[in-house]
Amino acid sequence: MPLIVGHCHGPAHRPPFFRMQLAFSAAEIAAIVQPLSIKGTTDATVRGIAALGLAQAGDLSFLGNPKYKTEVATSAASIVLLPPDYAGEPSIGQQFLFVQKPSVALARLCTRIEQLLWPKPVPGIHPTAVIAPGARVAATATVGPLCVIEEGAVIGERTHVQAQAFIGRNAHIGADCWLMPRVTIATECVIKDRVRLQPGVIIGSDGFGYEFVQGRHEKVPQVGNVVIENDVEIGANSTFDRARFSQTVVGEGTKIDNLVQIAHNVVIGKHCLICAQAGISGSTTIEDYVVLGGQAGVAGHLRIGKGAKADGQTGINSDIEPGSFVKGSPCMPYNFEQRFNVLKKKLPDLFKRVDALETVAEELKKSSAS
Amino acid sequence: MPLIVGHCHGPAHRPPFFRMQLAFSAAEIAAIVQPLSIKGTTDATVRGIAALGLAQAGDLSFLGNPKYKTEVATSAASIVLLPPDYAGEPSIGQQFLFVQKPSVALARLCTRIEQLLWPKPVPGIHPTAVIAPGARVAATATVGPLCVIEEGAVIGERTHVQAQAFIGRNAHIGADCWLMPRVTIATECVIKDRVRLQPGVIIGSDGFGYEFVQGRHEKVPQVGNVVIENDVEIGANSTFDRARFSQTVVGEGTKIDNLVQIAHNVVIGKHCLICAQAGISGSTTIEDYVVLGGQAGVAGHLRIGKGAKADGQTGINSDIEPGSFVKGSPCMPYNFEQRFNVLKKKLPDLFKRVDALETVAEELKKSSAS
Amino acid sequence: MPLIVGHCHGPAHRPPFFRMQLAFSAAEIAAIVQPLSIKGTTDATVRGIAALGLAQAGDLSFLGNPKYKTEVATSAASIVLLPPDYAGEPSIGQQFLFVQKPSVALARLCTRIEQLLWPKPVPGIHPTAVIAPGARVAATATVGPLCVIEEGAVIGERTHVQAQAFIGRNAHIGADCWLMPRVTIATECVIKDRVRLQPGVIIGSDGFGYEFVQGRHEKVPQVGNVVIENDVEIGANSTFDRARFSQTVVGEGTKIDNLVQIAHNVVIGKHCLICAQAGISGSTTIEDYVVLGGQAGVAGHLRIGKGAKADGQTGINSDIEPGSFVKGSPCMPYNFEQRFNVLKKKLPDLFKRVDALETVAEELKKSSAS
Repeated sequence: MPLIVGHCHGPAHRPPFFRMQLAFSAAEIAAIVQPLSIKGTTDATVRGIAALGLAQAGDLSFLGNPKYKTEVATSAASIVLLPPDYAGEPSIGQQFLFVQKPSVALARLCTRIEQLLWPKPVPGIHPTAVIAPGARVAATATVGPLCVIEEGAVIGERTHVQAQAFIGRNAHIGADCWLMPRVTIATECVIKDRVRLQPGVIIGSDGFGYEFVQGRHEKVPQVGNVVIENDVEIGANSTFDRARFSQTVVGEGTKIDNLVQIAHNVVIGKHCLICAQAGISGSTTIEDYVVLGGQAGVAGHLRIGKGAKADGQTGINSDIEPGSFVKGSPCMPYNFEQRFNVLKKKLPDLFKRVDALETVAEELKKSSAS
Repeated sequence: MPLIVGHCHGPAHRPPFFRMQLAFSAAEIAAIVQPLSIKGTTDATVRGIAALGLAQAGDLSFLGNPKYKTEVATSAASIVLLPPDYAGEPSIGQQFLFVQKPSVALARLCTRIEQLLWPKPVPGIHPTAVIAPGARVAATATVGPLCVIEEGAVIGERTHVQAQAFIGRNAHIGADCWLMPRVTIATECVIKDRVRLQPGVIIGSDGFGYEFVQGRHEKVPQVGNVVIENDVEIGANSTFDRARFSQTVVGEGTKIDNLVQIAHNVVIGKHCLICAQAGISGSTTIEDYVVLGGQAGVAGHLRIGKGAKADGQTGINSDIEPGSFVKGSPCMPYNFEQRFNVLKKKLPDLFKRVDALETVAEELKKSSAS
Repeated sequence: MPLIVGHCHGPAHRPPFFRMQLAFSAAEIAAIVQPLSIKGTTDATVRGIAALGLAQAGDLSFLGNPKYKTEVATSAASIVLLPPDYAGEPSIGQQFLFVQKPSVALARLCTRIEQLLWPKPVPGIHPTAVIAPGARVAATATVGPLCVIEEGAVIGERTHVQAQAFIGRNAHIGADCWLMPRVTIATECVIKDRVRLQPGVIIGSDGFGYEFVQGRHEKVPQVGNVVIENDVEIGANSTFDRARFSQTVVGEGTKIDNLVQIAHNVVIGKHCLICAQAGISGSTTIEDYVVLGGQAGVAGHLRIGKGAKADGQTGINSDIEPGSFVKGSPCMPYNFEQRFNVLKKKLPDLFKRVDALETVAEELKKSSAS
């Protein structure tokens, strides 16, 4: 699925790499990743994470993809996370930690780093935030500087609203959410629990609906709202239109990338992945576990079946069966589209072959007539 | 025009739907939609709008598309908006309101709801807004919290600037505009009357222009501005570049969706529809009544004729005749593109047919030679 | 390269055009553009810049593209910038300034206008900005109203941070940068010198990375940062994701347009041009001098060779050789794709020709058999 954006699980094979402003001892690393077994010892303090080929003393590295296996033996990393079946031995001063899945172990370590980079803020409302008298902010929530929270809005327990966010009238934000700087939640919209919204996200802009009356587009008021279910994450500057009436919905656990457009009355199921710059037109239903590649577009009033996948830049203009994989604009089954792309290269030759056949046919007709 | 984003006129055929925080009696509904005639009576208080198949007692529904006609008879809606030629009878406690165009009647009702959801703010400047001494804000205008209005900027009568907006030096905003939270209007740009800008819109960023000089891109200063004419609406996080010199223009009544990019020196005519994530390159002219589908792209220095339409994801790289309908990238007439998409499916077979013909030709040549 | 967005070097051939709020005498213009030679004299005060065919008395115009040469003789512009080889004579009251490259001369004039439109602000921190105690702002820097600058952030000499910007914990902004309103720089990100960020830019949102564990997408923490090198410019509302670990990098002198998405761990080289709405997926490397047209998409983990160009809407899903020019989705060499687009129009006819050949073959087989 080559154009699908953002599934970066492999190492980044080039400098420069990041030197953490943090430091871990080998014992601290082991406590976090909980290895099945350990080989070798190191006194190094881990201050960086790097790909096997780039790592230096003081770095931690990992074998996330078997194709880089040969790089382990020559890696200068002080600690390497490895799958249980890796057979080699560490060099002197190097430690191997064997774990069920190195990428998951690395994620656990990064979660710890994340907590250190973004320490949990002290609950409370910054004095420069503008909170309407009728808004309710939980005592355990944090509201950053220069936020605006309008009348009737509710901010749930332990939710962190960063600087300059806007929460409109009667909007409800649940518990344990993280709204990053400059997020906008418009009037009456609902954000449930553990939702993470990257900077610049807009929830609840008007849907794009007009009636054409006497040569002008007359606005169809958009008086529904948007509901974001539990555990959703949404990327920077993505936009979600409120429903004409009823609701635009994003289902539990769905992850949405940057600059994505979700039109009014769209209903997205659970645990979908919507990659950057994709767009979904009005009233379309996306069932659970759907994956849309980057820059994919879906027309309105369609149903995309459970677990369907679309490659990057796919244009979907018809219902899609559950579990199918589509590509192209307008989209076709992935395998057909790949076959077409092979034939496309042979098309100039096909024209020549038909030219030649016509010449032969002409000659044969002549000789047959004579 | 399957990929065109956002023209949602039909009912949303699935839950959940929105329960308004408002209540209307049957008499209040009738006063708003002004029916041609009425059948049946209901005591219900209308608190929601729902599609025919989903509506419950207390909901209003409507027949916007004839294909749902059979759903009227079984709908539990307390009030149904119907076209004059609908022949059935309401059930007990149900009221039918016959109107020329149910979708227009619904829009009128929603306009009333909209006024209740976003009550007209009290004029005045919020004490946390930062207004330069030389800016002029009309006495009837509203400026929300934490806005910044720079030197020489003008805000017209009854215009509503919501929280955290930025109005740059010498920018002019006309009368009866609605600038939603976090809108940015840069230096010298002009917004005329009754313009509605969704959250995050940016008007007047620099155009993208460079001269390549000695291996580097030297910036071409962008010293023109942007002019947004009367009755324009622009969607969330869309961006409009200021002209290199002269003006970037959006014509009267044109409606633009979310995440749209308008480059420097583009001139858009009147009453166009530009769907989400479309982009128009520099110095292109879009004539009146043009419709661009979602994710469509238009190259620079072109002219798109009056009333032309482009399907979603279309790539336009040549002038387009007035009234034409194009599709594909690079675009072709819509009908040709549809025909091509049918033939594309037959292409693998065509290769086999040419293989077979070559075999036959070879045999015929042999038998003819013998 | 028809779909590449934003390379507007020619005149905009239509009204309305911009009347500057500034005035230049002929002597002042000459002092700025430093002509090789001058013909004619004018007393006019220059208050506008306009295309040759639209210019009036009091306007300056220029011959940027030889194809408009015939318009010079009839232009009413008071001053015209011309290449050294232009042979005609000015009319009475008109002045010709001969310069090596009129577009470069015009750019110099516009740079002067730019300085007048955006006068250098007085250094200092606006009293409404919220600056953490541990942030360091250079004495020569300007921080606008309602900015938020968090703990440990650094703002360099002469840098101008406009209203409502957000600079996160430990972020470093170098010298002589211009951050326009509502720019967001997240925790630990690095902006070097002379960087210009248009409104709404987001640097350092989380990369889009998840592990699929027991039916749910478990977040892979994104603990790297973003580094923007010297002399980069980034367009409105574009988004740059922080690395999973290590860095997302934009190289020196690269110019990026509006609404562009750069995923985590992308490394972009020097002096590239990335046009509007293009997107680059995770861990891809873009070498120096690459040009990506508008709405182009690049898949992850690829290498785009030095000086390669991609037309607008191109979909790149494989490595690209240095210096190549690609088009289409999935992309092909530009010349092949152009040839395919010619053959595509002939495809319906090709099907008919094969039908006819089959008829002929059938007849020949019959007559050969008889």
